[in-house]
Amino acid sequence: MSDRKLVLITGAAGSIGRVVREGLKDRYRLRLMYHRTVLPAQDDEEVVVGNLSDLEVAERAVAGVDAIIHLAGDPKVEATFQSTLENNIVATYNIYEAARRHGVGKVIFASTNHVSGYYELDGMPASVEMPIRPDGYYGASKAYGEALGRFYSDRYGLSIICLRIGSFLERPRHARNLATWLSHRDCVQLMWRGIESPVPFAIVYGISGNDRRYWDISGAQQILGYEPEDNAEAYAKEIMGNE
Amino acid sequence: MSDRKLVLITGAAGSIGRVVREGLKDRYRLRLMYHRTVLPAQDDEEVVVGNLSDLEVAERAVAGVDAIIHLAGDPKVEATFQSTLENNIVATYNIYEAARRHGVGKVIFASTNHVSGYYELDGMPASVEMPIRPDGYYGASKAYGEALGRFYSDRYGLSIICLRIGSFLERPRHARNLATWLSHRDCVQLMWRGIESPVPFAIVYGISGNDRRYWDISGAQQILGYEPEDNAEAYAKEIMGNE
Repeated sequence: MSDRKLVLITGAAGSIGRVVREGLKDRYRLRLMYHRTVLPAQDDEEVVVGNLSDLEVAERAVAGVDAIIHLAGDPKVEATFQSTLENNIVATYNIYEAARRHGVGKVIFASTNHVSGYYELDGMPASVEMPIRPDGYYGASKAYGEALGRFYSDRYGLSIICLRIGSFLERPRHARNLATWLSHRDCVQLMWRGIESPVPFAIVYGISGNDRRYWDISGAQQILGYEPEDNAEAYAKEIMGNE
Repeated sequence: MSDRKLVLITGAAGSIGRVVREGLKDRYRLRLMYHRTVLPAQDDEEVVVGNLSDLEVAERAVAGVDAIIHLAGDPKVEATFQSTLENNIVATYNIYEAARRHGVGKVIFASTNHVSGYYELDGMPASVEMPIRPDGYYGASKAYGEALGRFYSDRYGLSIICLRIGSFLERPRHARNLATWLSHRDCVQLMWRGIESPVPFAIVYGISGNDRRYWDISGAQQILGYEPEDNAEAYAKEIMGNE
């Protein structure tokens, strides 16, 4: 068991963190990082508590791990500039820089579809080749995390996978989710495929294999080998009947 | 004369600021913003002094102007993250937000070729359609300014022109500048064409009409009507003979 990779999950108490923790616990050893909410450890999990806006805290969190899943941050689409500055921009710099200093070669960065949110507001599909069009400070801060990740990959050789996560939900709730849903197990799959991928850098949309999707998932499929197991279409009749 | 637009130039004591001030003073009324170095006012110039990392200072600086040329920031390619955070990321947010609050409809944002610097390091041409590849914190911070500008344009209707400025020099110095040079008068032209342009948002490379360029200037030509007057090739024999 000890030859399994040790993976740090930041933001481990968040909605994605809780699911990824359960989904990866048999594949990796886990170090879970919390900020305010601290969940009890299971089995051989390691736990760290702290605020990633402090580089020293980030360094302690990453020391000795093989890979980082960086989920921590302000996840609100309408977050203020000031909050995204501290919780997303500074914290993400601290994670990359701590990883570089401690020789951690892999970071999965939780980006968001909101880096291209204005295409959706304009009724347009989006791909990672299209220029950034954030729909708020949140999306802009995640675009910064992608850009900075590219720099850390180019300059320092870290492998960094940016997942533009869609609507992470147990099941689709609204009509929009028929396009944007990312199921729990598909999210877990994207995480481990990202960790195991040898590519130095990628930005991919992370959604399930939804028939109605308007974001390109060919990158996730071709670069990471992602094979989505879920499709929001299974919920279409029920959701469209309710709306 | 009083029907001329009032234009705020931030970073007015910088190398670009000094040239743009001289080049635009007959076309516009100018408000010059300084931080540390303060130059004496000429004629009817207005002067403000302050640090743009303070939103209230930014609001006082922009109140009543018709357009903003935002040059202030840490211009060093190897600037630290912390310096780019305060001087580039926060200051640029403050400029956009102050412009929005005071109804200023136009911002010229001094971006940089270093948002795509790793293409150049890899020997590749670059265009604004290509994904961001910064060569440092400086380039990443300017990419953030572009992304945030797109948001302010999409959401609030400001017209924001991002100039990815090349090597701003009186004349080319080194072989690289034969591709990357932006002459003084071509820079001034880009500024006023940006101010007069009705387009809601654009990112364009700002260099002279250099025969050896590897950055696409068709955007500046087609979107802004830019007609470069200079071409670094005029200095090629001399420079190549010296190197």
